[in-house]
Amino acid sequence: MKDSERAKKLAAETAAQMIPDHSMVGLGTGSTLEYAIKELGRRIRDEDLKISAVTTSFQGQLLANENSIVTLNSMNVPNLNIAIDGADEVDPNGNLIKGLGAALTKEKIVAAMPQRYIIVIDETKKVTQLGEKTPVQVEVVPDALALVECFLKKLGVKPRVRPDQSKAGPVVTDLGNLIVDVEFGIVNNAESLEQQINNIPGVVSNGLFLGIVDEVIVGSVEDGQARVERRTFKKKTFKI
Amino acid sequence: MKDSERAKKLAAETAAQMIPDHSMVGLGTGSTLEYAIKELGRRIRDEDLKISAVTTSFQGQLLANENSIVTLNSMNVPNLNIAIDGADEVDPNGNLIKGLGAALTKEKIVAAMPQRYIIVIDETKKVTQLGEKTPVQVEVVPDALALVECFLKKLGVKPRVRPDQSKAGPVVTDLGNLIVDVEFGIVNNAESLEQQINNIPGVVSNGLFLGIVDEVIVGSVEDGQARVERRTFKKKTFKI
Repeated sequence: MKDSERAKKLAAETAAQMIPDHSMVGLGTGSTLEYAIKELGRRIRDEDLKISAVTTSFQGQLLANENSIVTLNSMNVPNLNIAIDGADEVDPNGNLIKGLGAALTKEKIVAAMPQRYIIVIDETKKVTQLGEKTPVQVEVVPDALALVECFLKKLGVKPRVRPDQSKAGPVVTDLGNLIVDVEFGIVNNAESLEQQINNIPGVVSNGLFLGIVDEVIVGSVEDGQARVERRTFKKKTFKI
Repeated sequence: MKDSERAKKLAAETAAQMIPDHSMVGLGTGSTLEYAIKELGRRIRDEDLKISAVTTSFQGQLLANENSIVTLNSMNVPNLNIAIDGADEVDPNGNLIKGLGAALTKEKIVAAMPQRYIIVIDETKKVTQLGEKTPVQVEVVPDALALVECFLKKLGVKPRVRPDQSKAGPVVTDLGNLIVDVEFGIVNNAESLEQQINNIPGVVSNGLFLGIVDEVIVGSVEDGQARVERRTFKKKTFKI
């Protein structure tokens, strides 16, 4: 197993081990979360935990099922005890870019539910400033594609509809929408950018996750030894 | 025909007669728009107009087809020459509440496209302040229903999932989402309310349409005589 995989696996398993018995848990999407979901499944079997979960994607739903995790329909769930997810970028203040897995809308819904929202990454996802490595993803109602692209171009950026390598045409999200990847470069004013993007008609959500993280668990490998670093943040109240 | 129907019909036909030949036109949703679409179809046949249209709902799409109006997929359309739609409330500044037809998201997309955005109403839709008669509609991804209701309750209001009189359970929009009707009463700070609602994860759009109208055509009947009043507004630039 590659060092980066070992780092992700250890971080993810550390998070899964923090889930208390009898809790309602949110489970994110992506390759790191796969490790977390498997570890949670193992704990449920071995420790006879009573856990129920909300997933954020078809991927998470299938994995939960394979790992004997009872899942709830989030339509009726406003609050969770804890949620775990990955991220594409994490800045020093615990702000995130998410969405390479194309599950950003459901991930943002579930991110707003828990008392404790925990992000699990390997150290390659740490950045000094958001936008260093990753475009900002925007989930768009297909009918609004040209309009949204037109508005995004007014922000001076070049939007790209994400193509799907495994079917003809663009990626379609679990919610039936399109993903527009936008290379903003360094994001200087993330809060106002998030707001501006949210105000474009036809935008369902965007990949900026700001001020909502309670803890980031970073996995790394040093001298052949996998280790984790845990950092806590003060979550802002959601702006409503 | 009832007076209110005669008023709507005259206003809608007046708008349809303003559509220039060779234009790309946005066609809204609702009972008033039905008159406009029929009149546009008549003009296309009688005057041999070359018109293409973008619709905002399955209703509009079916009506366009019945009336021989060529429709484009809005996925590739960023701009329109003109668009016509109805509204549930229009205030003295030309701000709107829309969404009783449950087509608000697509209507908001199409409202952002035209050079001239024209609203057609009968006089019962005129209000002094938004919220006098109509709830504010919020279109919500089903997975986020409980979360969105929870956030809306923090605003001190009681959200109601709109039930469907013609099938079991709630109304499902043309985009596969739910409609939450929210009785805010008089809306004092519409711009910040629109923004707050847009920022709730899982909200696709809301029924506040602010600063985007070019003209309102109001139909009424006085002394048995149907008449229209036309009022123009200075459209704000879209906030991006």
